[in-house]
Amino acid sequence: MKMPRKPPTKRSGTAEDEILARIHASAFRSGIHKRGLYLGVGDDAALWRPKPGFETILTCDWFLEGTHFLPEKHPPDAIGWKCLARAVSDVAAMGGDPRCFLVSLAVPSTRTGRWLDEFLTGLQRAARRFGCLLAGGDTTQRPQILLNVMVVGEVRLGRALLRSTARPGDILFTSGRLGEAEFGLRLIRQSHKRMNSRDPALKKHLYPEPRLSLGLWLAEKRLASALMDLSDGLSTDLPRLCAASGVGARIYAEKIPAVRFSHRPKNLMPNPVELALHGGDDYELLFTVQQSKLKEIPQSFGGIPLTPIGEITQARKIVLIGKDGKLSPLPNRGWDPFRNP
Amino acid sequence: MKMPRKPPTKRSGTAEDEILARIHASAFRSGIHKRGLYLGVGDDAALWRPKPGFETILTCDWFLEGTHFLPEKHPPDAIGWKCLARAVSDVAAMGGDPRCFLVSLAVPSTRTGRWLDEFLTGLQRAARRFGCLLAGGDTTQRPQILLNVMVVGEVRLGRALLRSTARPGDILFTSGRLGEAEFGLRLIRQSHKRMNSRDPALKKHLYPEPRLSLGLWLAEKRLASALMDLSDGLSTDLPRLCAASGVGARIYAEKIPAVRFSHRPKNLMPNPVELALHGGDDYELLFTVQQSKLKEIPQSFGGIPLTPIGEITQARKIVLIGKDGKLSPLPNRGWDPFRNP
Repeated sequence: MKMPRKPPTKRSGTAEDEILARIHASAFRSGIHKRGLYLGVGDDAALWRPKPGFETILTCDWFLEGTHFLPEKHPPDAIGWKCLARAVSDVAAMGGDPRCFLVSLAVPSTRTGRWLDEFLTGLQRAARRFGCLLAGGDTTQRPQILLNVMVVGEVRLGRALLRSTARPGDILFTSGRLGEAEFGLRLIRQSHKRMNSRDPALKKHLYPEPRLSLGLWLAEKRLASALMDLSDGLSTDLPRLCAASGVGARIYAEKIPAVRFSHRPKNLMPNPVELALHGGDDYELLFTVQQSKLKEIPQSFGGIPLTPIGEITQARKIVLIGKDGKLSPLPNRGWDPFRNP
Repeated sequence: MKMPRKPPTKRSGTAEDEILARIHASAFRSGIHKRGLYLGVGDDAALWRPKPGFETILTCDWFLEGTHFLPEKHPPDAIGWKCLARAVSDVAAMGGDPRCFLVSLAVPSTRTGRWLDEFLTGLQRAARRFGCLLAGGDTTQRPQILLNVMVVGEVRLGRALLRSTARPGDILFTSGRLGEAEFGLRLIRQSHKRMNSRDPALKKHLYPEPRLSLGLWLAEKRLASALMDLSDGLSTDLPRLCAASGVGARIYAEKIPAVRFSHRPKNLMPNPVELALHGGDDYELLFTVQQSKLKEIPQSFGGIPLTPIGEITQARKIVLIGKDGKLSPLPNRGWDPFRNP
């Protein structure tokens, strides 16, 4: 079930071996040893060494047909891109640098042809973009497409940025605009045919960009007191950061960087603040900064806005201050697979 | 979607958070830092450091309802045990020592009660047995039970034992007896009710024991020239070792350590050599030894027989020598998910 290093001969190869050989042939392999990978695809396991003075980040993510994507609506190359981007975002969320990944793939036999090729094209485009090498994985046959991606990253010893270290008085920031991915998902759900995957309104939903440079910079410069990525929506993820740190937060509706709608039919325009609060899949970074370091945070980083949206409080509540100045508890309405199946 | 370090408060927790908190509460946590785990469950990712002079082994394995187990036939604690044992076996197959693991779990909401508790009991019993700590994971809801386990191990720099280094003239060994797991699977398939999971004939199928001490010893003493584990059956895995090494092999049917049937009805007794050649899931080790080191290989190791079953050849064919002395090509009839769905 492991990936063979050399394409197997006709005699020895199982159907699984042949699929694995194609996956491997598509792999981006430049600078294997420079990326810390000393044995990749082809044995029982991969061998990995971080740079001296660095430690290893480990994370994994499901990406499942029906739950996370719809094969009839989502282009295969976007599924390939996003399964890696989601997992890599957890490395960004630690302030680390992704190095290699394992991919576990289950597909129906009807998806082993062109679908698989396009999927691999997207996966390998993402791998090149994030500097993250295919190191191995597992494959099997299933009626539905199932993916699990495990990413290995590295971070300088002791520099990883955690969720559990926010302190009362710290200012809460988010990168980018929130709700854009959810808006793209709604456009795709409402469309009866497969949409043009180059539509800019779909980019963040189909081809998310983990905020790697930003995470690295915050960690290297020790600018953030706590950091996580926004994968399930601000109203679900902010309570997690607060619970881990034993604190609360106050956020301001009018400060939240929400979607800017351009030329879209009126009936497709949901409330942008609702989208920003509860929409998942943005893969922006949520981080806290001590007041004394505020002046070191620019308004944008690499073209991505960094916006203060509130502050950390001692009282363990999450409070939303509306545009009218009214306080209300923030309802937790982001993504929960056991509520939104 | 990540595992919270502290059980979330009622206010902040999603249903997913509550399941994650239960998974975490069940975790075996002794000697976290001694095992190299510097940040476990509870953040965006885990942090891992191998001992100085060691490198990191990375591997992952699917374990899926319908494909790899049947919830109506397999006890939940055996599913928990085996999902980890399978992945840990790949670490044994490198001559390494397992340290920590990530588990990705998808379950129907009907399986979040007693089923999940029993599953976690088996998983954590295996974790303790293998000295392998839960470091994180991902969870979601699905109509079927899906598991993916990613194991991190370590091995002294340059000591990992590969598949690709067998040489002509080396003697081919296997540990244990082959076909026992397949025999157990057949008993379970033929039974109309759930069988007694303590039946010794089912042990190897339900609760396999990766050959960790043997793998470590072979690597530390540099006794094996190549090593892999038998997960898909000798007739599928031996060709993989040979393809990776660019060699062939000759094996002797009468030397293969096969199942010894005790008090079983006659109609349930398949041909033991067929079982040994094509049965999967044994998780025994297949290794090669240079002639000059043969005398250092004992007849058994820790109670597990080590049996020479043939030799590596320059001719790139896999030849089976029957009990009658006749030569035949070994048909590749082990586990292939794209042939045996």
